[in-house]
Amino acid sequence: MIIVLKPKTKSKDLKHLISKIKEYKLIPHISKGKERTIIGVIGDERVLQTVSLESFSCVEKVMQILKPYKLASKDFKSTPTLVKVGDYFIGGKQVILIAGPCSVEGREKFLKAAKMVKEAGAHILRGGAFKPRTSPYSFQGLGEEGLKILAEARDIFNMPVVTEVLDTRHVELVNRYADMFQIGARNMQNFELLKEVGKTNKPVLLKRGLMATVEEWLMSAEYILSNGNMNVVLCERGIRTFEKATRNTLDLSTVPLIKELSHLPIIIDPSHGTGKKKLIPAMARAAVAAGADGLTIEVHPNPAEALSDGDQSLLPSEYSKLVKEVEKIAKAIDRKI
Amino acid sequence: MIIVLKPKTKSKDLKHLISKIKEYKLIPHISKGKERTIIGVIGDERVLQTVSLESFSCVEKVMQILKPYKLASKDFKSTPTLVKVGDYFIGGKQVILIAGPCSVEGREKFLKAAKMVKEAGAHILRGGAFKPRTSPYSFQGLGEEGLKILAEARDIFNMPVVTEVLDTRHVELVNRYADMFQIGARNMQNFELLKEVGKTNKPVLLKRGLMATVEEWLMSAEYILSNGNMNVVLCERGIRTFEKATRNTLDLSTVPLIKELSHLPIIIDPSHGTGKKKLIPAMARAAVAAGADGLTIEVHPNPAEALSDGDQSLLPSEYSKLVKEVEKIAKAIDRKI
Amino acid sequence: MIIVLKPKTKSKDLKHLISKIKEYKLIPHISKGKERTIIGVIGDERVLQTVSLESFSCVEKVMQILKPYKLASKDFKSTPTLVKVGDYFIGGKQVILIAGPCSVEGREKFLKAAKMVKEAGAHILRGGAFKPRTSPYSFQGLGEEGLKILAEARDIFNMPVVTEVLDTRHVELVNRYADMFQIGARNMQNFELLKEVGKTNKPVLLKRGLMATVEEWLMSAEYILSNGNMNVVLCERGIRTFEKATRNTLDLSTVPLIKELSHLPIIIDPSHGTGKKKLIPAMARAAVAAGADGLTIEVHPNPAEALSDGDQSLLPSEYSKLVKEVEKIAKAIDRKI
Amino acid sequence: MIIVLKPKTKSKDLKHLISKIKEYKLIPHISKGKERTIIGVIGDERVLQTVSLESFSCVEKVMQILKPYKLASKDFKSTPTLVKVGDYFIGGKQVILIAGPCSVEGREKFLKAAKMVKEAGAHILRGGAFKPRTSPYSFQGLGEEGLKILAEARDIFNMPVVTEVLDTRHVELVNRYADMFQIGARNMQNFELLKEVGKTNKPVLLKRGLMATVEEWLMSAEYILSNGNMNVVLCERGIRTFEKATRNTLDLSTVPLIKELSHLPIIIDPSHGTGKKKLIPAMARAAVAAGADGLTIEVHPNPAEALSDGDQSLLPSEYSKLVKEVEKIAKAIDRKI
Repeated sequence: MIIVLKPKTKSKDLKHLISKIKEYKLIPHISKGKERTIIGVIGDERVLQTVSLESFSCVEKVMQILKPYKLASKDFKSTPTLVKVGDYFIGGKQVILIAGPCSVEGREKFLKAAKMVKEAGAHILRGGAFKPRTSPYSFQGLGEEGLKILAEARDIFNMPVVTEVLDTRHVELVNRYADMFQIGARNMQNFELLKEVGKTNKPVLLKRGLMATVEEWLMSAEYILSNGNMNVVLCERGIRTFEKATRNTLDLSTVPLIKELSHLPIIIDPSHGTGKKKLIPAMARAAVAAGADGLTIEVHPNPAEALSDGDQSLLPSEYSKLVKEVEKIAKAIDRKI
Repeated sequence: MIIVLKPKTKSKDLKHLISKIKEYKLIPHISKGKERTIIGVIGDERVLQTVSLESFSCVEKVMQILKPYKLASKDFKSTPTLVKVGDYFIGGKQVILIAGPCSVEGREKFLKAAKMVKEAGAHILRGGAFKPRTSPYSFQGLGEEGLKILAEARDIFNMPVVTEVLDTRHVELVNRYADMFQIGARNMQNFELLKEVGKTNKPVLLKRGLMATVEEWLMSAEYILSNGNMNVVLCERGIRTFEKATRNTLDLSTVPLIKELSHLPIIIDPSHGTGKKKLIPAMARAAVAAGADGLTIEVHPNPAEALSDGDQSLLPSEYSKLVKEVEKIAKAIDRKI
Repeated sequence: MIIVLKPKTKSKDLKHLISKIKEYKLIPHISKGKERTIIGVIGDERVLQTVSLESFSCVEKVMQILKPYKLASKDFKSTPTLVKVGDYFIGGKQVILIAGPCSVEGREKFLKAAKMVKEAGAHILRGGAFKPRTSPYSFQGLGEEGLKILAEARDIFNMPVVTEVLDTRHVELVNRYADMFQIGARNMQNFELLKEVGKTNKPVLLKRGLMATVEEWLMSAEYILSNGNMNVVLCERGIRTFEKATRNTLDLSTVPLIKELSHLPIIIDPSHGTGKKKLIPAMARAAVAAGADGLTIEVHPNPAEALSDGDQSLLPSEYSKLVKEVEKIAKAIDRKI
Repeated sequence: MIIVLKPKTKSKDLKHLISKIKEYKLIPHISKGKERTIIGVIGDERVLQTVSLESFSCVEKVMQILKPYKLASKDFKSTPTLVKVGDYFIGGKQVILIAGPCSVEGREKFLKAAKMVKEAGAHILRGGAFKPRTSPYSFQGLGEEGLKILAEARDIFNMPVVTEVLDTRHVELVNRYADMFQIGARNMQNFELLKEVGKTNKPVLLKRGLMATVEEWLMSAEYILSNGNMNVVLCERGIRTFEKATRNTLDLSTVPLIKELSHLPIIIDPSHGTGKKKLIPAMARAAVAAGADGLTIEVHPNPAEALSDGDQSLLPSEYSKLVKEVEKIAKAIDRKI
């Protein structure tokens, strides 16, 4: 940590600051420049996260040297983590395909959708039973009934299932039915929920918040990891920007960036990432070319009748075509589907 | 609702769309222009929120005419809502001052802080017992012990207390001790939590999310209102932008904007809104000049020792000076403190 | 155009508005809904761009139906435009590679760089003679001397050259030496400059502004097109968002989006788009997989000595490796380098 | 400047970096921590702005200690700068009011508008002769004819005039007629234009770019100052964010922030800052309460007929009411109109 002092700091104030740093068993290292004096703090600066150094009247600014996350960092583990979901590994040579409708809307419809995405080549099945909707008047999901349908589809089609959990009170219930928890973008900083899924040992698909920096995203992963669950898969799904032509701005640079910073796998959601079905195939190809470990895509047998997110759902035939395109890209970078 | 069709739409596709609209008891109204055909949909378009019109192949775009919120709208209630907290009304002529430390850190310290903000002129006391922290390694709050201290302070100083609730499982507990719930920015779209506080009749201070549009914010208020609790106070606390010189960008234009759109009161949080204590007094004055119904400000007897947010906490003496400045502004616009 | 009226509009105000619309030879089409009355305006609404309909007291909001650009639109020209630069066509089956150092820093260094990127497979040479620098104390470019070096390199290596023009006063000068103008991100809305390059018939590489929507970007292209120059190539180079881990957020979804909206070719600049050399190869692969018509990449024989943007420049050896990777992706989608 | 090295840096690489630093007559100061080694660079680090330290393979990141601007900084001049425009001083006790229509649309209309804003209490007259318009099909201003009308209005009403300059080729012309240059938001980083107005000694109203950080804004001021013109007034006019309910997000925290960082005066433009006339009075009051040195507001005798920006123009009667409100706020903070 580097502390930059204001010009003309009184030696009394400097002494008080120095003694505070030493209280935490850290070593201050003072350099006097022509315009500013700075203090380099030697030791694990993370112990100072609870101290408000900027509130000392002599401090101009504080600059972090170390990353605030530990377990999520490549410094902690330099080899890629493989997360096992059913019989698949996310983070290895195979690019994992997750697909299905936004919501579980009923048994017949869901089993039909599951059959279709299976045939198109998807590995893992998705579908929401608890839905976070902007409007209280929109469809809120089927709840436990939806979970049961998910579990039935898993058994019939031999595909692991991933579904969103919204509420700490539902963690146990969802854990009973699903093979992987999904933490949605709006809950990326629902820290109580992160702690609860961190206490299980089930894989977690952690979506990036609309407004979350990559550092905050990794800090949210750290909540899960530090509670004992090492099976975290990151999922970029678009961030909010000023652009209105797309629903969100899909930040594909997170793929190589996460590979630089962390050992955790990362997959891409081009459905929410663009919000426009016409853009999804191109962004799916781009994601795989960038090195993503998987894709999660919304597919619905009849998007116009979907109870949520129909605007961004692909038809099974469109998805099937996308899978073939993506497979060629995977081969070009020496991976496989 | 206006539906813009793609050029060269087939009449078969148009018929299918029209029949869908009629299925929802709405009346389609077709206008053929030179370059585009549009359909005006007459009736309460909100019933179509569950339909994905953009997934019809002939649809270019869909434009909403009505606002998606109802109960939060001035169309529903044209007179300002007054929210009663203890003996105070938020939304009336008096500008309500909420103050206190970020977290309840211990009994002695908190009672000392409460005494100081009371003397400086604050009406309502704030302090966090459950803290949403970016890092799992930061202080997470005292929990129920903190709530007890809050309640004790209320009784001693005769000030109503407001505190954050993070988890659906804690709603009942917090309800027992506090006079007002706070829903933090990161939970603005924690819809299960909104529903739970909506089922109580206790006032709710609903902070705007860091990247929430004003419309989404009012939709979150709608979750609380539609569950039966009409006592919602909105709180602007800064949004996330590209600017790095301040922690957030305080969007004061929300004050006159909310007054245009809604009957709910709005207060301003210049502490989180700027993240820099030097900027707080100016922004507090500006907020009141813009017409805010109150201010919530972090005050700590010793910011350098604060376990959270010390960088943006005022000293009691600084707060006392701010109250005097703000009082002059309130008078200039014919309000009072 | 759709005009939404405020509730309880007086018929006098409505009449005034209607007569205004008719003054412009447009046909108003009134629909009275339960909550709102709307007016559909039939005809080329673009004539109303100079009228402030929202300033009529009875107007709640105005919604555009037609796109504000014409010549840049696919409605105007449905086949892809091929832009010829030297012997190359941008917008066809071949993915065009532009490379070179950020600035022309001197004759020897530049010729060396040119040779290296040529050998690595680049088609077009880039290098700045006039540099827009945030700081007045930074290197501002060699000016005409730099242009001469560029022209010499073109002749030696038989590569067309592209270079930035910053000032209307330099358009003629740059036109004399370069094969393609570059309009930088900071000048995307320097409308006088757009008009000047629009009056030449030389190809223009139009970078997207840091803060420009896709619609504004196409409107800037429209300035060039409407002045008579149809040789515009769009270049996405990252937008500004809240994320700090990358210099900009590269918005690759513009590739399929521009292909939906316009006939103009689009290339990607992963150097500025990420600002981090480690991320460039992955984003270059992703860009080509998404369907980009080309790449522009900064390459410097010795980045540590570069007078500008060294942090994001690749070594020639790194660039050569990137070209090979990108070639495989191009083949996978049936294109070539 | 602080340079953070990667873990496991080779001593050969470290030596190379150190010798580079010494080449620039700076003194490196090495601190070895447990996880990272850092180098503190003593001396005026601004000489390193032309060196790409991050391109050294052993460098993880570089952190600036000193601000990149000098002449704009309070370190350079600690007392507030007063900028004289006509007989007024911007930056003193008086809050300066600039008003007028967006564009000069004709002699009669402009003189009428000038008379009205003068009567309402404005000090300085504004009006655009050269207009930067998003669309090439919109009204582009009257050019020199507009400047002549401006000058006539100045003489008749004894009010100094401010008008925008867009192009380096027009600086001399505008200088002949106007009392103050305006550099618009889209030209904040048109560095050639900044240099040209920097070579005059006429006051410059420098608007903040829509996506410019405060630091970049001060760097643009530095361009003007370092060319010899010290008469710079900053103008905040809203930044671009994700929010769509307002045209821009007016960042009022820049008022106290600029007062912390710089000696230059700052005024606020609530017209562009909100884009909605109903919000302007509240934001004007807020700006003055925050400590702004002035306001620039668009006023038009007939907004519905305005050729540009009618949606955000006030009627003279609305402006007159605003001036009275703002005067009360000014008095409450011991300033005057």
